[in-house]
Amino acid sequence: MDAEQLDQRLEAAVSIAEAAGPIALNYFRSPLAVDDKSAGGAFDPVTAADREIERQMREQIAARYPEDGIYGEEEGGRAGASGLRWIIDPIDGTRAFMSGMPAWGILLGCVEGERCLAGVVHQPFLGETFTGAGGRAEVRDARGTRALQTRASARLGDALLYTTDPSMFPEPAEQRAYEALVGACRMRRFGGDCYAYCLLALGCIDLVVEGQLKPYDILPLIPIVEGAGGVVSDWEGGAAHAGGRIVAAANPELHAQALGHLRNVSS
Amino acid sequence: MDAEQLDQRLEAAVSIAEAAGPIALNYFRSPLAVDDKSAGGAFDPVTAADREIERQMREQIAARYPEDGIYGEEEGGRAGASGLRWIIDPIDGTRAFMSGMPAWGILLGCVEGERCLAGVVHQPFLGETFTGAGGRAEVRDARGTRALQTRASARLGDALLYTTDPSMFPEPAEQRAYEALVGACRMRRFGGDCYAYCLLALGCIDLVVEGQLKPYDILPLIPIVEGAGGVVSDWEGGAAHAGGRIVAAANPELHAQALGHLRNVSS
Repeated sequence: MDAEQLDQRLEAAVSIAEAAGPIALNYFRSPLAVDDKSAGGAFDPVTAADREIERQMREQIAARYPEDGIYGEEEGGRAGASGLRWIIDPIDGTRAFMSGMPAWGILLGCVEGERCLAGVVHQPFLGETFTGAGGRAEVRDARGTRALQTRASARLGDALLYTTDPSMFPEPAEQRAYEALVGACRMRRFGGDCYAYCLLALGCIDLVVEGQLKPYDILPLIPIVEGAGGVVSDWEGGAAHAGGRIVAAANPELHAQALGHLRNVSS
Repeated sequence: MDAEQLDQRLEAAVSIAEAAGPIALNYFRSPLAVDDKSAGGAFDPVTAADREIERQMREQIAARYPEDGIYGEEEGGRAGASGLRWIIDPIDGTRAFMSGMPAWGILLGCVEGERCLAGVVHQPFLGETFTGAGGRAEVRDARGTRALQTRASARLGDALLYTTDPSMFPEPAEQRAYEALVGACRMRRFGGDCYAYCLLALGCIDLVVEGQLKPYDILPLIPIVEGAGGVVSDWEGGAAHAGGRIVAAANPELHAQALGHLRNVSS
């Protein structure tokens, strides 16, 4: 894919993700949704929002790129002939969404083989869209478009580390490795989901360490982190596209130090 | 204090907290601040923002209400003659602030004796101000002003529970009580700080359970939660004004059930 085609697909991804924002906001903090859920009924506002968003995104992708494959969290895969596949996570950060905290995002990535060429996170409540493609990452908000750049600090002792939830490391060996890394960092904070990777790309934090991720949780985030100067891998330093245990670092030096703690955890 | 005086003080609190927003945003996600911090220097952007905000808020309070006392996190207390005291937490949620996550807030409360008569949380990045006074709570944002109302669900098994950080419960007995309550709830999420109490008042979550709070962390939040229909107390069911171990619940029924797990933890 040449630079012009890549740019066109990135703009398509931005437009499709942003078009889904109003659907998400219809459900976010909705008193109706909360009332229904608290009544103990079968209606789940997160799943309803997830499905409605994924349906619209699938339609728009199929209309623009009928030859491409699609994989979404809710409806699974549809094969394509082009060798390209769109990965949708309609709402990444279900717990944040359920609880009214604006740390969730609408994720969309365009993948070739195992590599995500273009990735987008749209956070409609904050009015922010994070993009990554071709080695560049940007954030778009009400103030315009700015390049993203991770922090340069390579000292683990200065690092701010995010993890969505402590329950991501159920095995004793991974828990031990994770806690050893946390102990070497300046600060650890829970909560974040996809937005933690955006904070990394914004240069606000230094490490995101997680476990039990699905491919669609991480794929669209990889070009954003990498385009801002960061590194994303699994805990062995291998490719991150398959999900599982993930470490994202602001720079290669910090990444190497984090791997020093995380490597060689038996699965 | 009559209703008109209370209303005047609430509007003063809103105006003083909102005037501090631009100072906080100058430091929030600031590359300069991040660069300085990562260089390992003595400059701490959080403390700098804290101090600058508190200084401005103190000046504005002293100019409007010279007879009132003031207590701020950074500069301590100043006695007053009126029997009223203003409580300032210039940035509640230091870790969120440091990491670029918009879950911190500027807190201001007007206290008589041990009771907070009027409380304000201002979150300038989100453009939201939460207020509570005289048994009413509201949120003001770009869409206008709306009354806050907590959720009515009284089932612990449906409850969404927030806690800022697991390190808030260092003692084994409080950790056990807390985990027993978490086990009875539908979901627990970490992160939140003052914003978790706002999510409770918004009707998005059901419980906030914390430990090791200072008086200024909780005082301004009490009239917001109570004005929205919620209940705030310590883990024994007593007044919350002194901080320590706190439980805030969406309604009295849920509060009673939460206390069933939290009571009788020896300190």
